[in-house]
Amino acid sequence: MAHPVTPVSPPLKDELDIVIPTIRNLDFLEMWRPFFQPYHLIIVQDGDPTKTIKVPEGFDYELYNRNDVNRVLGPKASCISFKDSACRCFGFLVSKKKYIFTIDDDCFVAKDPSGKEINALAQHIQNVLTPSTPHFFNTLYDPYREGADFVRGYPFSLREGVPTAISHGLWLNIPDYDAPTQLVKPRERNTRYVDAVMTIPKGTLFPMCGMNLAFDRELIGPAMYFGLMGDGQPIGRYDDMWAGWCCKVICDHLSLGVKTGLPYLWHSKASNPFVNLKKEYKGIFWQEEIIPFFQSLVLPRDCTTVQNCYLELSKMVKEKLGPVDPYFQKLGDAMVTWIEAWDELNPPAQAAATAQPTAVNKDGPSSKSK
Amino acid sequence: MAHPVTPVSPPLKDELDIVIPTIRNLDFLEMWRPFFQPYHLIIVQDGDPTKTIKVPEGFDYELYNRNDVNRVLGPKASCISFKDSACRCFGFLVSKKKYIFTIDDDCFVAKDPSGKEINALAQHIQNVLTPSTPHFFNTLYDPYREGADFVRGYPFSLREGVPTAISHGLWLNIPDYDAPTQLVKPRERNTRYVDAVMTIPKGTLFPMCGMNLAFDRELIGPAMYFGLMGDGQPIGRYDDMWAGWCCKVICDHLSLGVKTGLPYLWHSKASNPFVNLKKEYKGIFWQEEIIPFFQSLVLPRDCTTVQNCYLELSKMVKEKLGPVDPYFQKLGDAMVTWIEAWDELNPPAQAAATAQPTAVNKDGPSSKSK
Repeated sequence: MAHPVTPVSPPLKDELDIVIPTIRNLDFLEMWRPFFQPYHLIIVQDGDPTKTIKVPEGFDYELYNRNDVNRVLGPKASCISFKDSACRCFGFLVSKKKYIFTIDDDCFVAKDPSGKEINALAQHIQNVLTPSTPHFFNTLYDPYREGADFVRGYPFSLREGVPTAISHGLWLNIPDYDAPTQLVKPRERNTRYVDAVMTIPKGTLFPMCGMNLAFDRELIGPAMYFGLMGDGQPIGRYDDMWAGWCCKVICDHLSLGVKTGLPYLWHSKASNPFVNLKKEYKGIFWQEEIIPFFQSLVLPRDCTTVQNCYLELSKMVKEKLGPVDPYFQKLGDAMVTWIEAWDELNPPAQAAATAQPTAVNKDGPSSKSK
Repeated sequence: MAHPVTPVSPPLKDELDIVIPTIRNLDFLEMWRPFFQPYHLIIVQDGDPTKTIKVPEGFDYELYNRNDVNRVLGPKASCISFKDSACRCFGFLVSKKKYIFTIDDDCFVAKDPSGKEINALAQHIQNVLTPSTPHFFNTLYDPYREGADFVRGYPFSLREGVPTAISHGLWLNIPDYDAPTQLVKPRERNTRYVDAVMTIPKGTLFPMCGMNLAFDRELIGPAMYFGLMGDGQPIGRYDDMWAGWCCKVICDHLSLGVKTGLPYLWHSKASNPFVNLKKEYKGIFWQEEIIPFFQSLVLPRDCTTVQNCYLELSKMVKEKLGPVDPYFQKLGDAMVTWIEAWDELNPPAQAAATAQPTAVNKDGPSSKSK
């Protein structure tokens, strides 16, 4: 029997950073205040560094603009996208916490079918703190949720599960559709609240959306790179997809879990489908080659760290996807630069101590207040 | 825009049989009357043939007892389990319809969260008539449901999906737990209504429960064999699991889909955990070898029919699982007998005409009424 315990502080308060790419909407933080205020925020501004983001009183935050990215990373700053929300991965790099929750500024607090506001962060924390089950499907969904378990026929040797590296949350209202689907179904809204969390099985790829995402930096952080998008790049809106494909094959290789489902948040606004089509159109046909590439790749057995796996992957990207477009040569190089930057900012000794709260980051952000 | 059409008759009325192993509870058919009465029932009595099952007025049914099984199959009757609900697969064999829905007699009509009675059969029909997506995961679940679609990043070349062979429904109230879990959690009830249907990805095994199951006989029927259980056999309660593992590897090989989730039904009564433990205990450790066997097996490329695949599988079972216990030699032989019986009762010409309603089965059942 579980005995309810009154929490003395919010869960993982000193072990989790919230990373947000550019806040254009100040209602965003006000709406999330009851849930986010106890946590540290890392805001990464995607565009013009002369514009200032006003963060309301009471939040503990770091704000990085492009000048900060350049100062912190020097020449390695080339791996961070400019004028694109893909820049959020810079926040993953400079964080010193074990867990990250990242969210877009057009996502608000959703309500469950009973009308109660959903604490998305609390659900993500529950997801990452309970194991995943990638090696066999459980028909009653996450067996670690209250009121659920493994069903008849589930092998007992697999019931311990594996550590969960990623928790992928969903969206009510505006679904995360590509430009063609947005154009064809302009009025479609997601109203279906599916009360489930589940592990995406080993060997199965999924479209990872960066709008509502949490992960364990220690387990998978170095693979959570959002690629080269936005200013000067031939594609956009594939940043999170790229990270998702890379992370999933590495999680599968290292026997780590990826969960999807709850929590929902309220996605308030559809982005412009015409702009999106322009950003996506190369990705739409490139992915027809990228998916078979990821589905068939095998990482060498001796790759036992995320960094090793990722560097190996970067070689394969250049070799196998390079012929598709020169962009993938550049992307393969950027993947290497990203790992170099990661290792520089997260040296092993420091990585081991990430569970300790750190007051200020090494190179200092633009601004910080409490 | 979809225009609502008033159905002139229940969906698939002449193309679907409902197969029920032994009805011990007459409330069962009364409760399901509004949903089942338009369809043809095949009842397979698992035990003593001298006991008669009374079917209420108004149902169109065939009833087979052990004497009928022996008469219809002759020496091949050895592949049909006796005194076990695994005998239900005899109903799959003698049916001449394209679709089967099978259900246990302790399963009643469930209600959805709005309090409305769930038409389980209608949901199964919807599941089997829409494609599956085993090659890539869709985070908004079944993309063919109303109000849903493929999300951003889902490859366009995979959006046609593959034919759905199996629809696996779930249970509210008593979950389908094994004996150890029943013993440990005697009071656990499933109260969570998860409003989702999803495809089980390619390469992933699942525990298929026979309580609430529909399938396309033409696509997967010959693999829907429930093995040797019950009287004279060393295990029980692995009949549906066995069928599920065999069906899943064959569906994966032939690029057919398996869906799970909706519909729910109300599972009224937990079976006795002590009796279950006795039936299950060998299966509990055997499955630790069976699962890796199914996870790693590769069917030859030239196996292009379910029958070919199943015969190949029977050889592998004897070769790889035979050393685990002599039971698997016997099971491998029974698998071959089952296919011989299938082909005898479903000759190719007749199989091609299965969409046509047939008035009486070749060898005639014990009783039939309307």
